[in-house]
Amino acid sequence: MTDGPLRIGLAGLGTVGGGVLSILANRPDALEDRAGRPIELRAVSARDRSKDRGVDLSNVDWLDDPVSLARRSDIDLVVEAIGGPDGPAKACAEAALDRGAGLVTANKALLAAHGVDLAARAEAAGAALRFEAAVAGGVPIVKALGEGLAANAIERVYGVLNGTSNFILTEMERTGGSYPDILAQAQELGYAEADPTADVGGFDAGHKISLLASIAFAAPVDLDGVAIEGVERVSLQDIQFARELGYRIKQIALAERSSKGLLQRVAPCLLPAESAVGALNGVDNAILCQGDAVGVTVFQGPGAGAGPTASAIVADIIDIARGDARPAFGAPVARLEALPRVDPGDVRRAYYLRLTLIDQPGALAQIASVLSDEGVSIDQMRQLARKPEAATVLIVTHEVADRALRAAVETISGLGVSLAEPVALRIERA
Amino acid sequence: MTDGPLRIGLAGLGTVGGGVLSILANRPDALEDRAGRPIELRAVSARDRSKDRGVDLSNVDWLDDPVSLARRSDIDLVVEAIGGPDGPAKACAEAALDRGAGLVTANKALLAAHGVDLAARAEAAGAALRFEAAVAGGVPIVKALGEGLAANAIERVYGVLNGTSNFILTEMERTGGSYPDILAQAQELGYAEADPTADVGGFDAGHKISLLASIAFAAPVDLDGVAIEGVERVSLQDIQFARELGYRIKQIALAERSSKGLLQRVAPCLLPAESAVGALNGVDNAILCQGDAVGVTVFQGPGAGAGPTASAIVADIIDIARGDARPAFGAPVARLEALPRVDPGDVRRAYYLRLTLIDQPGALAQIASVLSDEGVSIDQMRQLARKPEAATVLIVTHEVADRALRAAVETISGLGVSLAEPVALRIERA
Repeated sequence: MTDGPLRIGLAGLGTVGGGVLSILANRPDALEDRAGRPIELRAVSARDRSKDRGVDLSNVDWLDDPVSLARRSDIDLVVEAIGGPDGPAKACAEAALDRGAGLVTANKALLAAHGVDLAARAEAAGAALRFEAAVAGGVPIVKALGEGLAANAIERVYGVLNGTSNFILTEMERTGGSYPDILAQAQELGYAEADPTADVGGFDAGHKISLLASIAFAAPVDLDGVAIEGVERVSLQDIQFARELGYRIKQIALAERSSKGLLQRVAPCLLPAESAVGALNGVDNAILCQGDAVGVTVFQGPGAGAGPTASAIVADIIDIARGDARPAFGAPVARLEALPRVDPGDVRRAYYLRLTLIDQPGALAQIASVLSDEGVSIDQMRQLARKPEAATVLIVTHEVADRALRAAVETISGLGVSLAEPVALRIERA
Repeated sequence: MTDGPLRIGLAGLGTVGGGVLSILANRPDALEDRAGRPIELRAVSARDRSKDRGVDLSNVDWLDDPVSLARRSDIDLVVEAIGGPDGPAKACAEAALDRGAGLVTANKALLAAHGVDLAARAEAAGAALRFEAAVAGGVPIVKALGEGLAANAIERVYGVLNGTSNFILTEMERTGGSYPDILAQAQELGYAEADPTADVGGFDAGHKISLLASIAFAAPVDLDGVAIEGVERVSLQDIQFARELGYRIKQIALAERSSKGLLQRVAPCLLPAESAVGALNGVDNAILCQGDAVGVTVFQGPGAGAGPTASAIVADIIDIARGDARPAFGAPVARLEALPRVDPGDVRRAYYLRLTLIDQPGALAQIASVLSDEGVSIDQMRQLARKPEAATVLIVTHEVADRALRAAVETISGLGVSLAEPVALRIERA
């Protein structure tokens, strides 16, 4: 299998597929050096045959149906660049793997929903399944966790896995613009979709962290176990106050293993402004991994776009050309062990609280008393007065169980001294 | 080859060897999941048999001679943790590879001197040679460049590859201590050797960047082609002035490919304080890679120590257990292509200049005239007056060829208006 050329079928010629096309066309000799054998594009499938993709495809077979492409016996490896968790992408992936062809995909939705099943099909047929491009675009984090840090018991993995959200949050901070204004700009620049829910709602990052968790902890992908909160509710005010306190607000995707089980969460969080992930600007992604032997490593780079995504896909192709045999997730499917889900109420973190109080004597004393009753201890507090008759109070707590913090906030809400709903945001451990 | 256990021989049981011992002993099942087969420590060689290494070695054979260990037919893979560019380390490595056993090493001096020869031996015998731990400790940068970014034409790789130097520079900045004082502290903390020359003189980073350059550019290792300047001459004053201008001084190891060839250099450089590598503190390493498809990616983490180094070594062991067949450097030895060395005088960068001038009318005009004559254009200039009768002048230039800058500095030196030798430091491109 490692002698002749590796024959590729490429399903989907959109942004990602087009990026793969141009890398394969531009540097065949260099790729052959790396792969130890020629890499040949043999067939493609795409809806529109007439579009100019900047690459000569006259020697390449065109098919309408990606499943027919996947079934061709003269193709050793299928690149699925169609997208979507089901439908043609899934059918194409299954058809390739079931007959023993390799599969490379950037499709996190497909993998988060069906990754373990696809991995089982791959193992049964002796095929390779790789998806470096599904998480953090061009940053080789799947490889880092599954290979480079494979000697470690990983304790946690967290970071910014969605460039759109990070762009919006950093642009709000930089320009003082509101969430809707900056979202509109991001849409104009092509950084956000017309329907931005997948990105700003945290679902995209949720898919990605579920894949990283599986690799890091050798557990089956558990997408339903990811608690997801979007960044839509993050206000400019909180971004600015957080900054004054030395923090920045990021959409943080986290997977953490403790004696109680696995915590998976996507949520807006504060991070120290000087920390590796807290300092991240723009559309980049950054991921921090903590392992028992290595300590903390950080990986940063472009999380999306044709070039970075294609870079990751072609890296997978090269690995498979070399005969790479790593399991798709952290271990062979039969040895993946499900971890119990940690009760989010038990998770302890420090919190940022912003309270808008009636400016009357005793209001603050009532707050302090509620916090004390719930066992929430205060690390720092600042009282600001920006509006007449309203006092803004910023509180940074010590670490406290989520349940206790929520109870305190609810009680505070009902006290009759708040002019607006209290805002509570976690401070992630740097 | 991928069925039975992978039988390991470990040569050297110092800090690094001890770290490997404890990972292999602590998590055998997890390692087997990752590797697809058991990893068994079969034999060790070390001078001192009596020392307690915290791991039960009663079932392991002890040999006095690492070459005899490497020659044992019941060993599939030798971990060379002896150290040194020649002598027993080299003999052990050659003995292992020549009979087709895998070799994993953290020995950058050995690899920088003999890496291509060892790679040729490995290829001739069908053996694997891996050295993730030789560069940036626990940060999987060898894998990232050789595999994760393998689809890219790499344009440059640079970063902090020596934690000792970075610790000294950041501690000088943080505490206001002088170079000799902070060096003494680093020695007390175990971050610097009694003879610190290899670290602060840039030689350690030189070894490492020569290895990364070979992988990135598929060229033979060219250690002699690395221009090396140490950080010993960096003064607290310059660290502080640089900071005021928005920069930090780092020991930067750089490999850059242009149409003229390959530039390899280790030198103290200024970097924007907010940049990924410029922001690095303490003993961590950080490496930035720029590729044509992916753009810029950054990798950061612990560059030394038992745990991080062993993490990288065991990752290599797992790769080899899986049957990994990547060439040791950027391509099979026969396809490595030597690149011409770029003339350092031709390389263009911006510069930081600190001049200590006699405080007399016309001195600054003379400086400006010399710079202008040599084609050095000024981006910003500040005149400070900290001592009586002496004016400190800080200049940041636009990009200029090294040759022209050096000529200007030499002329300025001879003008008779300087009270101290001018200081000139490059500003690396972020």
